[in-house]
Amino acid sequence: MEGLKINPWEVSSEIKEQDYPKLIKEFGAKLIDDKLLDRLKKITGDLHPFLTSRLFFAHRDLDVVLDDYSKGNEFYLYTGRGPSGKMHLGHLLPFIFTKWLQDKFDVDLLIQITDDEKYLVKDISMDEIRKNTQDNILDILSLGFNKERTHIIVDSEQSKILYNNAIMFAKKLTASTAKAVFGLKDSDNVGKYFFTSMQAVPAFLLSAIKGRNVRCLIPYGIDQDDHFKIARDILPKLGYYKPSAIISKLMPSLQGTGKMSSSDPNSAIFLDDDEETVKKKINKYAFSGGRDTKEEQRKYGANPDVDFAFNMYRALEPDQGKVSRAYADYKSGKILSGEMKAMSSDAINKFLSGLRERKEQIKGHVGEYMFDVNRFKD
Amino acid sequence: MEGLKINPWEVSSEIKEQDYPKLIKEFGAKLIDDKLLDRLKKITGDLHPFLTSRLFFAHRDLDVVLDDYSKGNEFYLYTGRGPSGKMHLGHLLPFIFTKWLQDKFDVDLLIQITDDEKYLVKDISMDEIRKNTQDNILDILSLGFNKERTHIIVDSEQSKILYNNAIMFAKKLTASTAKAVFGLKDSDNVGKYFFTSMQAVPAFLLSAIKGRNVRCLIPYGIDQDDHFKIARDILPKLGYYKPSAIISKLMPSLQGTGKMSSSDPNSAIFLDDDEETVKKKINKYAFSGGRDTKEEQRKYGANPDVDFAFNMYRALEPDQGKVSRAYADYKSGKILSGEMKAMSSDAINKFLSGLRERKEQIKGHVGEYMFDVNRFKD
Repeated sequence: MEGLKINPWEVSSEIKEQDYPKLIKEFGAKLIDDKLLDRLKKITGDLHPFLTSRLFFAHRDLDVVLDDYSKGNEFYLYTGRGPSGKMHLGHLLPFIFTKWLQDKFDVDLLIQITDDEKYLVKDISMDEIRKNTQDNILDILSLGFNKERTHIIVDSEQSKILYNNAIMFAKKLTASTAKAVFGLKDSDNVGKYFFTSMQAVPAFLLSAIKGRNVRCLIPYGIDQDDHFKIARDILPKLGYYKPSAIISKLMPSLQGTGKMSSSDPNSAIFLDDDEETVKKKINKYAFSGGRDTKEEQRKYGANPDVDFAFNMYRALEPDQGKVSRAYADYKSGKILSGEMKAMSSDAINKFLSGLRERKEQIKGHVGEYMFDVNRFKD
Repeated sequence: MEGLKINPWEVSSEIKEQDYPKLIKEFGAKLIDDKLLDRLKKITGDLHPFLTSRLFFAHRDLDVVLDDYSKGNEFYLYTGRGPSGKMHLGHLLPFIFTKWLQDKFDVDLLIQITDDEKYLVKDISMDEIRKNTQDNILDILSLGFNKERTHIIVDSEQSKILYNNAIMFAKKLTASTAKAVFGLKDSDNVGKYFFTSMQAVPAFLLSAIKGRNVRCLIPYGIDQDDHFKIARDILPKLGYYKPSAIISKLMPSLQGTGKMSSSDPNSAIFLDDDEETVKKKINKYAFSGGRDTKEEQRKYGANPDVDFAFNMYRALEPDQGKVSRAYADYKSGKILSGEMKAMSSDAINKFLSGLRERKEQIKGHVGEYMFDVNRFKD
């Protein structure tokens, strides 16, 4: 894996599908095998397309969470968002999956908005971050999260409880570990050194508040693994469970390489892109798994798994029967790239328009989703 | 100054009186000269014995504070305490001086209790730190601080406003600066790296809250200079004034070297020592500036300036006329060490008994001294 970089602040654009199992082995996590999928399905009734498509493909101690859950012990979910800009589809996919987990298991979900980190690592003003924070929260909530069990932690709003717990964590984390794991340098600011402690807190916060151990399951992209690997080392030293993880590949990028990026408007589909823009982006920029000509496509068929349009269709089309048929037909050459793109644009536009509708309904209710420590006191 | 160490976490025991002007020059601060003392006296009416005795002997931009004050611009005071154990007389002396400044200038005073730092740097539990915090606050307040203008910031209580401002500071502070200034190592925890940002916040907090620049004057022991030297570098980059400082020598130690230490019960007079214990400690352990024999003392006189008993008498005897006479008589040999020690024990015991009385009155009112951000909003 020489030269491949994948950590919270840097991702090589050359990560290929076949690299993932090797990365996971190197990181010390496990692949989600068919047995574990079956076990999940027994509880959840069906499997989310992100599981069957292996977008969420690896885990740490997911089996332990399920063992505990089957004994009647609740766990909770924790995920997050760094509000560095407006959100695109790639940002939203992990939340779609997290919502599915929450709905299936009926558990609490902490969503950490790391406005402090964005301030520390980016050349961006707090005013801009505040605006992004408000917009991002609304975008996330427009997925329709359970109001009773969804708790948004904006770091700067909850810095009291976060900091007071973060120093427990920070006491166990040396600068040399922070350097080795994150590639921090002496020239980096001391806030960056400390921040990983703030990001670790939600992984044990409910245990800290309740005064008894509650398991935490964290869905995250593989690029965030370093943060939580450290958390798994340190939490037992504080008397808490190691957090469990369900880990995704990098979210599919419009142009097929690396992550979607907020800084390049054509590298991603933004949540506020209108129907025509979506169509144009899919037609013009979407990485295709189809053949170069109509004839070749009819003859050899496409590779749907690397096809952005198909992947979005699979992610967003509610009728998974249709998706299976499209997969078969696209692969066999019965469907051409242009048709796949049209189906995908439609699914994306339907999804975005649903988001926009729910967004309007949710405006004015955002406060009801904000983390309140008193709701967790037994 | 080879080999002399003086920083927040380490103090050589060999600092001698003659080292101080050199240290101050090396640190880039200024001595408080007679002209500045005269100027102070014109405003305050008299000079505190810690100024005339040159215990508070150096400054950074004290003249700038006075310039501003003379134009009708208020400043505020900031000092602190790390609650690592119970307090002794040496801990209380800077607060005595700070109270004098507050009373003379009628200004706000922020007192930061750095419970987070103590947790990060010592092998001590949060429960123990919490107990120390309560005890220390009561000890400090028993000096009789102005309730309207004294604001105690317990870091773990005010971590929201502190952290949110500290990240502004942290963004400008590199790990390499923290290493160079504090001698931090890669093996130190990341909390220690970040902490200096938390300690810097009260130096600009009122400006941040009010949204306009207010000058801050910080009385501190020379061993804390590193913290505030960094603050003076960074605050202007955040649009704030450099904090001003009034700097003391290391507080006189019972046994004459280094600082009084909470860990050695015979190295210090504790605030809960009873009258007999005080007498015994002064007689048995107090570093003396007197001669070895009665005859030599009569003939050559003592050196009151290095004499612990005399220094405490000077610090705590309210009648400074008496102090001047004692100084002359002790120096000339008219007073013997034993007599000086008796006078000193009496003054200390009177002072401690006054503290205990006020402490009883203040119990139940401590909450009224706690920092409340709303009191500073214009």
